[in-house]
Amino acid sequence: MSKYSIGLDFGTNSVRALIVDAESGEEIGTAVVDYASGEHGVIIDPKDPHLARQHPGDYIEGLEKSIHQALESSPQVSPQEIVGIGVDTTGSTPMPVDSNCMPLALQSEWRDNPSAQAWLWKDHTSIEEANEITEKAKAEPYLAKCGGAYSSEWFWAKMLKCERTDPRVLQAADSWMELCDYIPAYLTGAKSPKEVKRSACAAGHKAMYHSSWNGLPSKEFLSMLSPTLASMRDKLYERVYSADKCAGTLSEVVANKLNLKAGTPVSVGAFDAHLGAVGSGIEQGMLVKIMGTSTCDIMVAPNDGTIPDIPGLCGIAEESVLPNMLGLEAGQSAVGDLFNWGATKLADGDHERLQAEASKLKPGETGLLALDWNNGNRTILVDQALTGLILGQTLHTTAAEIYRALVEATAFGALRIIERLEEYGVPIERIVCCGGIADKSAFVMQIYADILNRPIHISKSAQTCALGAAICGAVAGGTHKDVASAQKSMTAFKETVYKPNSEANRTYLQIYALYRDLHDAFGVHGTQSDLSGLMKQLISIRKSVINA
Amino acid sequence: MSKYSIGLDFGTNSVRALIVDAESGEEIGTAVVDYASGEHGVIIDPKDPHLARQHPGDYIEGLEKSIHQALESSPQVSPQEIVGIGVDTTGSTPMPVDSNCMPLALQSEWRDNPSAQAWLWKDHTSIEEANEITEKAKAEPYLAKCGGAYSSEWFWAKMLKCERTDPRVLQAADSWMELCDYIPAYLTGAKSPKEVKRSACAAGHKAMYHSSWNGLPSKEFLSMLSPTLASMRDKLYERVYSADKCAGTLSEVVANKLNLKAGTPVSVGAFDAHLGAVGSGIEQGMLVKIMGTSTCDIMVAPNDGTIPDIPGLCGIAEESVLPNMLGLEAGQSAVGDLFNWGATKLADGDHERLQAEASKLKPGETGLLALDWNNGNRTILVDQALTGLILGQTLHTTAAEIYRALVEATAFGALRIIERLEEYGVPIERIVCCGGIADKSAFVMQIYADILNRPIHISKSAQTCALGAAICGAVAGGTHKDVASAQKSMTAFKETVYKPNSEANRTYLQIYALYRDLHDAFGVHGTQSDLSGLMKQLISIRKSVINA
Repeated sequence: MSKYSIGLDFGTNSVRALIVDAESGEEIGTAVVDYASGEHGVIIDPKDPHLARQHPGDYIEGLEKSIHQALESSPQVSPQEIVGIGVDTTGSTPMPVDSNCMPLALQSEWRDNPSAQAWLWKDHTSIEEANEITEKAKAEPYLAKCGGAYSSEWFWAKMLKCERTDPRVLQAADSWMELCDYIPAYLTGAKSPKEVKRSACAAGHKAMYHSSWNGLPSKEFLSMLSPTLASMRDKLYERVYSADKCAGTLSEVVANKLNLKAGTPVSVGAFDAHLGAVGSGIEQGMLVKIMGTSTCDIMVAPNDGTIPDIPGLCGIAEESVLPNMLGLEAGQSAVGDLFNWGATKLADGDHERLQAEASKLKPGETGLLALDWNNGNRTILVDQALTGLILGQTLHTTAAEIYRALVEATAFGALRIIERLEEYGVPIERIVCCGGIADKSAFVMQIYADILNRPIHISKSAQTCALGAAICGAVAGGTHKDVASAQKSMTAFKETVYKPNSEANRTYLQIYALYRDLHDAFGVHGTQSDLSGLMKQLISIRKSVINA
Repeated sequence: MSKYSIGLDFGTNSVRALIVDAESGEEIGTAVVDYASGEHGVIIDPKDPHLARQHPGDYIEGLEKSIHQALESSPQVSPQEIVGIGVDTTGSTPMPVDSNCMPLALQSEWRDNPSAQAWLWKDHTSIEEANEITEKAKAEPYLAKCGGAYSSEWFWAKMLKCERTDPRVLQAADSWMELCDYIPAYLTGAKSPKEVKRSACAAGHKAMYHSSWNGLPSKEFLSMLSPTLASMRDKLYERVYSADKCAGTLSEVVANKLNLKAGTPVSVGAFDAHLGAVGSGIEQGMLVKIMGTSTCDIMVAPNDGTIPDIPGLCGIAEESVLPNMLGLEAGQSAVGDLFNWGATKLADGDHERLQAEASKLKPGETGLLALDWNNGNRTILVDQALTGLILGQTLHTTAAEIYRALVEATAFGALRIIERLEEYGVPIERIVCCGGIADKSAFVMQIYADILNRPIHISKSAQTCALGAAICGAVAGGTHKDVASAQKSMTAFKETVYKPNSEANRTYLQIYALYRDLHDAFGVHGTQSDLSGLMKQLISIRKSVINA
């Protein structure tokens, strides 16, 4: 009898079900189902560009359809052979639930209330609440693990915003649950929020949960924000679990709907990027970059006190990636999104043509330098109120040259993150990239290799997040003794390795010094800079590479 | 018998012949002929974006065709009724000529040699030579009249570059001639360069000619640059003439080719912008902005020692606009060119759609701020080695928003020039704009009125440069006793006046303060700046105008 594991990956616009061979990692079948509501699955508000919600019913519908279709595409797989189910989702994507773990939005009274939906990770309606939390937490230790600033993308800010704008929703909720907690709760038929094994990943990265201050922030602190939030603390959770742990088993009711076997183990949920790192084979010393619309950088490190708090790093959380280890999360708010901005707003949307044109240029030849902040800066500066910058344009500058400069800008941003990690004693021995961009664009990846000046490996799987979830399902189901041995069997790199070109790197080092000047001048409060030679330096670099 | 005058306007891409009633200024007939060679008449080098040359044969061909066509379009005009011909051209656009005033490039040996062509005003290949001239002229008085820095767009830098890259061309030349000197020389059948009445405008603004140091720079100075240049000084000119003077009369040979009457008076040439100012009715206290691909700002002032040298002003020259007065020239290297860059490189080239979209936005609503330096900075900073900059982009920023930011950037640059003139005691009582942009774009002109915070008048003629040339032709031919009385008869403003909106101006003043910060940070050597709040200030301005 074969052993298969199912990875469920709940993305921003769709859910993917992936069936893998739990012993070899071979991908047997997969299906992707778009969420039904809103614009590409996202409920928006034309009057408020910050609002981004999702209807929980879309998750359940997408879950069923994607599993049915994935099973149909894998006739050799029988439900008996499925040893476990793992779950990854976007986050922080919390939603209010009732005392039976039922999302309020699935009840007729709340169905059309935007505050009762899942608050998608990219909902930024709570910028003021996030600032308030940051301000009030300055006297507390909580911010040390999240880069010194709380974000409007995160759990408490969203709940607080909900209370401020629609307090009835907060009062009606028995608890709030991250999407990555809700899906396992649904699959296992959890009877109450209190019995759900919550994700260490979501709690540690988004809810300021840390063992050193005994879990969630104190009731005293929360009551400074709002009494309702303080009393909500009791309805949340005391402890959390890494994603390799078993959350429970598939309930009879749900098993029947999904055509699976009741009793199949379901692992604890985690965020997509973190399980993407697992699916890429993450281990100590390896940086995994999950490169999509935005980029998440994931590392693990011993949880033995050797890693200090790292300023500007968006997250340091216990067991958020691998059990018994610290998970480190950094990231860039716009990578694929930035390329897409350049391609669609400044050109005809044809990425392939732009890349073909841009790839004819040498490093430095555009004469351009950009900052990758069109969506703010998530790591190092941790500032949503930064914006993009492009300089060096002549009257001949083309959209393809700007496109190249935007790609380079994201790679410079990536280098800045690597430097910061190393400055704080986290050595990086290997870089592995995964996700759509890593998979598809040799142009982008070669620029990254040249700028980061390290070989770049690419994950073999094109679905590392779902694969990571499937790995956790397989471990939770007992097929592998731990994540490391599951990774050894189930993950691999592609043969193609992008190797740095030393001449390109020499040029890029010069440009990076200018990027650093711009970065600090526009991003670091109170910096005094002399930028008066910068444009000339770019011209001189351009000349020297053209004449080389 | 009626009296007509012909204005010949040699632009960057085409030549225009304009036939006007020399008494009323009424425009009787006109024709435009594109230059035949290169890209839109400009010979370029794909390997060197600084190179921009023109084939002198294109001028002669364009001259003939445009006069023929203009005459065909004006059957009521007979050659006997033409009282004079005036000439304006781009500049500094010098070319090497032989001892018969024949451009080298019209001779088979030199026909395809780029160095033997006319070096178009926007040729920037001689940046290093211009810097060398600036450096060596620091001990001399020469730079005081040209803003403190010699430009790669100008006469001596171009000759020096020619010597450095192609010395055979310089040796083969008997003299060099500005295009505005060559055309009258051709029309009047001048036999040798020495007998050509050279333009005070070209000499004063581009060749460091000034009566206070006895004309051209001294031989001693030139020999520090190159012995060949020093000996070339002897082959140039001792004195110069304002454009209302008669350069000679139409030669038999050329008259036959043009279907005109031999003996028709031809006035001394001048640059397009300066005669555009004449065609706009320039007088003391009036700033005329000739707005095309680049913008020239022209004023006149008494030549009585009351006007000091003005740092960063590209030109103060004797009689360059009106006889017996100082001509002041400032300018911006890219205005229409910058809009066109935004429209064609970052969008589909549809200016109308972009302007329609951009005009729906309030001042400050784009959240963007740009520097108008894609082609360097001609006035204030006088630095060709500056480049463009755009900041404030989000992932939603559109090409139309960038287009608006580029228009605003040029208006901020214009305001900086006005401030500089007023700082040095040149009062500006009225602003008159002319040229394609002033004529066609209410969108651009309203932004200018709002940013400059003054009413903006528009010249009635859409062809003020050619009209100014025709005015000079009429004065040289004796129809009017002087330029002032010719202007009184032949020029007017449109009825439409663009008036500043005070609310828009208040917003723009806030953004202009940020523009000044950026301008000095990137443009003024050694400036220490704190730009770390700039992006946030733009966001806050944006918010306040959206909520207003």
